[in-house]
Amino acid sequence: MTANPATPLLDTVDTPVDLRRLKPAQLRQLADELREEMISAVGQTGGHLGSGLGVVELTVALHYVFNTPEDRLIWDVGHQAYPHKILTGRRDRIRTLRQGGGLSGFTKRSESEYDPFGTAHSSTSISAALGFAIANKIKGQPGRGIAVIGDGAMSAGMAYEAMNNAREAGNRLIVILNDNDMSIAPPVGGLSAYLAQLVSSRPFLNIRDFARKVSRRLPEALHRAAKKTDEFARGMAMGGTLFEELGFYYVGPVDGHNLDQLIPIFENVRDAAEGPILIHVVTKKGKGYAPAEEAADKYHGVQKFNVVTGEQAKAPAGPPSYTGVFAKALIAEAQNDPRVCAITAAMPSGTGLDKFASQFPDRSFDVGIAEQHAVTFAAGLAAQGMRPFCAIYSTFLQRAFDQVVHDVAIQNLPVRFAIDRAGLVGADGATHAGSFDVTYLATLPNFVVMAAADEAELVHMVHTATQHDSGPIAFRYPRGNGTGVALPDKPEVLEIGKGRIVREGTKVALLSLGTRLGEALKAADALEAKGLSTTVADLRFAKPLDSELIRKLMLSHEVVVTVEEGAIGGLGAHVLTMASDEGLTDNGLRIRTMRLPDVFQDHDKPEAQYDEAGLNAPQIVDTVLKALRHNSAGVNEARA
Amino acid sequence: MTANPATPLLDTVDTPVDLRRLKPAQLRQLADELREEMISAVGQTGGHLGSGLGVVELTVALHYVFNTPEDRLIWDVGHQAYPHKILTGRRDRIRTLRQGGGLSGFTKRSESEYDPFGTAHSSTSISAALGFAIANKIKGQPGRGIAVIGDGAMSAGMAYEAMNNAREAGNRLIVILNDNDMSIAPPVGGLSAYLAQLVSSRPFLNIRDFARKVSRRLPEALHRAAKKTDEFARGMAMGGTLFEELGFYYVGPVDGHNLDQLIPIFENVRDAAEGPILIHVVTKKGKGYAPAEEAADKYHGVQKFNVVTGEQAKAPAGPPSYTGVFAKALIAEAQNDPRVCAITAAMPSGTGLDKFASQFPDRSFDVGIAEQHAVTFAAGLAAQGMRPFCAIYSTFLQRAFDQVVHDVAIQNLPVRFAIDRAGLVGADGATHAGSFDVTYLATLPNFVVMAAADEAELVHMVHTATQHDSGPIAFRYPRGNGTGVALPDKPEVLEIGKGRIVREGTKVALLSLGTRLGEALKAADALEAKGLSTTVADLRFAKPLDSELIRKLMLSHEVVVTVEEGAIGGLGAHVLTMASDEGLTDNGLRIRTMRLPDVFQDHDKPEAQYDEAGLNAPQIVDTVLKALRHNSAGVNEARA
Repeated sequence: MTANPATPLLDTVDTPVDLRRLKPAQLRQLADELREEMISAVGQTGGHLGSGLGVVELTVALHYVFNTPEDRLIWDVGHQAYPHKILTGRRDRIRTLRQGGGLSGFTKRSESEYDPFGTAHSSTSISAALGFAIANKIKGQPGRGIAVIGDGAMSAGMAYEAMNNAREAGNRLIVILNDNDMSIAPPVGGLSAYLAQLVSSRPFLNIRDFARKVSRRLPEALHRAAKKTDEFARGMAMGGTLFEELGFYYVGPVDGHNLDQLIPIFENVRDAAEGPILIHVVTKKGKGYAPAEEAADKYHGVQKFNVVTGEQAKAPAGPPSYTGVFAKALIAEAQNDPRVCAITAAMPSGTGLDKFASQFPDRSFDVGIAEQHAVTFAAGLAAQGMRPFCAIYSTFLQRAFDQVVHDVAIQNLPVRFAIDRAGLVGADGATHAGSFDVTYLATLPNFVVMAAADEAELVHMVHTATQHDSGPIAFRYPRGNGTGVALPDKPEVLEIGKGRIVREGTKVALLSLGTRLGEALKAADALEAKGLSTTVADLRFAKPLDSELIRKLMLSHEVVVTVEEGAIGGLGAHVLTMASDEGLTDNGLRIRTMRLPDVFQDHDKPEAQYDEAGLNAPQIVDTVLKALRHNSAGVNEARA
Repeated sequence: MTANPATPLLDTVDTPVDLRRLKPAQLRQLADELREEMISAVGQTGGHLGSGLGVVELTVALHYVFNTPEDRLIWDVGHQAYPHKILTGRRDRIRTLRQGGGLSGFTKRSESEYDPFGTAHSSTSISAALGFAIANKIKGQPGRGIAVIGDGAMSAGMAYEAMNNAREAGNRLIVILNDNDMSIAPPVGGLSAYLAQLVSSRPFLNIRDFARKVSRRLPEALHRAAKKTDEFARGMAMGGTLFEELGFYYVGPVDGHNLDQLIPIFENVRDAAEGPILIHVVTKKGKGYAPAEEAADKYHGVQKFNVVTGEQAKAPAGPPSYTGVFAKALIAEAQNDPRVCAITAAMPSGTGLDKFASQFPDRSFDVGIAEQHAVTFAAGLAAQGMRPFCAIYSTFLQRAFDQVVHDVAIQNLPVRFAIDRAGLVGADGATHAGSFDVTYLATLPNFVVMAAADEAELVHMVHTATQHDSGPIAFRYPRGNGTGVALPDKPEVLEIGKGRIVREGTKVALLSLGTRLGEALKAADALEAKGLSTTVADLRFAKPLDSELIRKLMLSHEVVVTVEEGAIGGLGAHVLTMASDEGLTDNGLRIRTMRLPDVFQDHDKPEAQYDEAGLNAPQIVDTVLKALRHNSAGVNEARA
């Protein structure tokens, strides 16, 4: 570990109140120290590096000019907020980032009054900022809403919806477009091309030009509709007509690393603007740290690393990741079938589709941060006879729930959903947990919902999904590495709605869905050691349920326990519903369901999260033993 | 009833193949007859009138010029597709629109090969058209994707996401922007103002000008990036830079009722364009039928009406609608509390918020078709101390599921969700049913989920939600009229998580959530008549459950049946889960759950839908009797 850097000026700044006491000439040094401190901290904790480095000067300038926390500053996606955290009273905990009990890797209301809104999913900031701005307007109290949003995040529909509603806020709304030509992957689409053109075709706005423009133009801002010709002329002169047409006053592009420009431009905007403002700031991801500047994608999210060499700690060697196994399996399918194609919403490397794209560029689609479009686009592909796979993290598929219902399920179209990061996700915490997918998909008619117990099962499920043309089908798998089982030479088509017995017993039956199977098997060992003969089944399907298998096990065992890594309403609920429909619970069967607890679990090491969730082997054993004991205490007496 | 109109030319046209045999000079007459036929049909069935009338010429021109069904024509929202249905082999059934077993009021894949994609929720058409276009591109086969989308639908984020991805499709994608300055309510926001400006500032494009532009400019379309200056100039000359910046070739505005312009422009575009095209067509909602032209909102969706006078059949007098009761109750809350504010996503009259807006214009927000933004905007308002109510239909709240999870539930912000049209919705059918809200909301930590059993309960729930500042709270209520109960003089704050006993018995307990309570009470009468003493509880809360009440009833009754108007995973699942958690099912209790069936139910009369769903009193009685009988047949023997 390298020693912490010397930061004499930063040491005098605990909150933005301290920052605002500095002279403008001191801010360059402060920014440099802030950058050093951030590199040092992330070197020790791992986390998001490049995006924070890109906004060091922006962070300093915003807190210097605006009256935070009364002015509500919202960092879209939040993973670039580490410098913000250091400047807002959390420097003493910055080396606990993403650790259990430590600071979140995103903004979080419970952490600080300087985090007015938690952000982690993309593109929410303008809507939230508008909410703050309008609330203050209604209440007649001061306070702006300031959203800092990346160019990648601008590709999401909800950012556009918010911009379309900006005018009501007047100058209480300020949007900082942080244009680094890079979200996590290079951005895609028409907007991105437009921004690139805008930036490349004109020099950075300097303060003298800007002042001239402000004095000449801002008073006109409210009279746009009446001044059509003038407006087009202005659009030509200043660019940014796309934002102007949506009702913004566009300022830019501005060099986001030049404090001598940022500060006066922010000051002018703060004091002079009459309508909602969009300031187009150009930054470089990874700025000021050579390894990160050179490979922005590799330093987006990092392991602990050596600050001097940039070398990242290697993840311990182990079985292949589920993501990697999925990608390989899908490539194999595509080699055999020209109808197989794949869609990602701005997560090519996170989903493994970058590998797919390099082999099948014409059948691979990165649609940007646009899950809604991704799903309906896939529905269109399916309706025209393709075999599309939407590879989307469980938590992000929530963005497309209506499209899943309306465009896929109701029409019974065979879109394949590869649901990565299902279940708990460790350091990314509650906002990224994939807790609800089984519940929100299995409630839909026509849907087939699978969960892979290990990476070999995942290969079979990719193949099963490929062959399933009669309706929508989803398979979920977790973040991280597989269990190390051998991968099949030749994938099988699993029979829809059929589970498998993994271990046979007579008294206790554990019905597992997904990767808790290993813990269920451990629990079975422990139960067996106590003389309780235990069956373990891997149900494979949350929908349709293997009712034949479940019925058989319920009729032949005393205790049946379901185990899943999902919230209430999923597998356990479906098993209970089927059992009560059939009257299987009427005659003394003891059923229990084990699931994620009814809380949003904070970030922590995965093992700690499973323990907190109560989904490890000892807790499965406990549940079984309690159910057996319950017999004697009984509630029947009370009823009788 | 008026006699059907004489339509000699239309009588010769069964499908677009017939249409394409006509001479251009005959199309005006055909359009006139088509309009007469549509007015006559909707006069007999009721349904969506104004939007169909606005696109009569567009429908004729599209099918005349393009090669449907190979060219995939997708009508966004689908409710303007009645003329399309008449021209595509369904004229013989056009007077069955929205009736049980009859034609759907939207496009539907199962109805016709000319309906390549079902549409009913707004703004899906460009994504779907892109899917068709790209699939054909991959397969190397002909066939364009043609989306017809209204200006209101353009305010939704997913339309923007799709436009941002249009470039890959090249000239296989054609978007017709049907600009009638009206979705259901007048549209809102920056885009709308922009379009209005565009239309008002330039004359309709005529074919001579267009031909000149095409010959001069289309070859350049692919070299845009390199030709910055020219592009801005072109933007100025033709307008529509917003679409151009997203990568479209913009054509317009075009008079959407002038076939002499529409036909040649479509032909030119079809033959000459190199990139994705957006044709900006201006139409008048209700065109050609004076009553509908004069009051476009009143003739958006109509009852049966007299074609000559325009007079609509009056809905039978009855109790006030749930929507109306909600609006009144919310107005009363707002009169007492300046923090109460309300948000609708383009449904001011459907949700009753038009009445709220007329009294509290500063605290009322119509954000356009933008549910995602609506919810996160509300979260921002709540975070700044307001008491926001999001009034959104159950089916449309699906659009904002991620925002509900990420921005509201995780942050535990007190956004109030007024969920209208919960449960089955009659003539609008499967796409508009609100079947899943209890499942997808009650699975979320921190959420309170209520359902009103009658309109008096709804008033209490509005008040309860107003006072609930500790986290998110939702209340659902159905389409249609209340039960006729007296409304309370003074609303009460319901205790969170507490149900009520409506009727006391000893043997059977019916646990109802929401408006099936009436049927549960009828069932109780019938059971009592058979000597089965029956308790009926209105649980009020799906989350948190009244576990004390439920436990008490389970311990003191032999059969417990839950009844709800929602899909699997909702109330029944939560009751079963609680019961199995506590071991209440261990000793011979018979539990059954009654819920919506696992199918998407087609449109029909509400009574028929409830019967099909099995949620009427006789079916409740049946379920109880079967559960009681199950005792003797037993499954325990099989287990033993």
